[in-house]
Amino acid sequence: MNFKGEQHPGVKMPTGDTLGFRLNHTMLRVKDPERSLAFYTRVFGMSVLRRLDFEELGFSLYFLARLEEEEQVPEEKGERTVWTFSQKGLLELTHNWGTEDQADFAYHDGNAEPQGFGHICFSVPNLDAAEAWFDANDVEFIKRSGQGKMKDVVFVKDADGYWIEVVQADRLAGLGETPLDQ
Amino acid sequence: MNFKGEQHPGVKMPTGDTLGFRLNHTMLRVKDPERSLAFYTRVFGMSVLRRLDFEELGFSLYFLARLEEEEQVPEEKGERTVWTFSQKGLLELTHNWGTEDQADFAYHDGNAEPQGFGHICFSVPNLDAAEAWFDANDVEFIKRSGQGKMKDVVFVKDADGYWIEVVQADRLAGLGETPLDQ
Repeated sequence: MNFKGEQHPGVKMPTGDTLGFRLNHTMLRVKDPERSLAFYTRVFGMSVLRRLDFEELGFSLYFLARLEEEEQVPEEKGERTVWTFSQKGLLELTHNWGTEDQADFAYHDGNAEPQGFGHICFSVPNLDAAEAWFDANDVEFIKRSGQGKMKDVVFVKDADGYWIEVVQADRLAGLGETPLDQ
Repeated sequence: MNFKGEQHPGVKMPTGDTLGFRLNHTMLRVKDPERSLAFYTRVFGMSVLRRLDFEELGFSLYFLARLEEEEQVPEEKGERTVWTFSQKGLLELTHNWGTEDQADFAYHDGNAEPQGFGHICFSVPNLDAAEAWFDANDVEFIKRSGQGKMKDVVFVKDADGYWIEVVQADRLAGLGETPLDQ
């Protein structure tokens, strides 16, 4: 699909074959689930929808959602798993058992070389309040909203050093249309 | 939040400070937008909600959504940008200009060393039909649903080699609760 007057390279016409496809989750490996779950539940208000342990393979998966106020999640485990895999925009954290005890162990954030994955992004209703909230929780900033060429865009680090962008939608109406700040 | 009888390490009680936070998008760098947009619009039925070009910095951003049938996206650019940054579960593709012309250039998928980011995942209504659709479009499989210990889970590669998991929610009710296939 293209919007009126817009042409992008490579774009194909939609077909019925992809009806009902949904972008369910993004998976990041984490060194220490205790530290990561503390971070994502406290700082970003996420909930652990489902934890799956694979003893034979030595890892656990944690599926996290930022639930809306009114959302009803099934209590029964099997139903909850099916519900989890039907959602949009979840975060899956993979814990390979034992990494938390290795002093020198760290995952690669994708922004240092070799590059690839960049970041996840949260949209928030009030960016100034979010920055104060991050400060109150000793969250490490990569960039505050007033810094750099891209004003109104915040970057912080999660417990493993993965980058998290934080934006307030209605402050970005001119992004890409007006010159960047110098 | 914990579900009845479940305890996870590190989980904190929610506070009002994160009200309205949403996991908006995941960003992956891509070598050639023409190839990547062809892949994501054709194979996964995504739409380019918004493209933002930054001439001074030499890159473009493409925000993609797998829109539901009934979804109405604002036509006007500024409104559409604000709408884009208010959504859940988008994919942002970053194109640093010129990489498409470098024969040896490739991004790192996060699954080879050094590890970090793992994959994105699409939920589909019918996994068998999705596998046939991928075959019809010459998509490269990492793992078909019948292979490996995790049955009913498919992995394919995108145009840059990033891994995409594909699942059918109602075939996963027993995941993590029943022994894995040998």
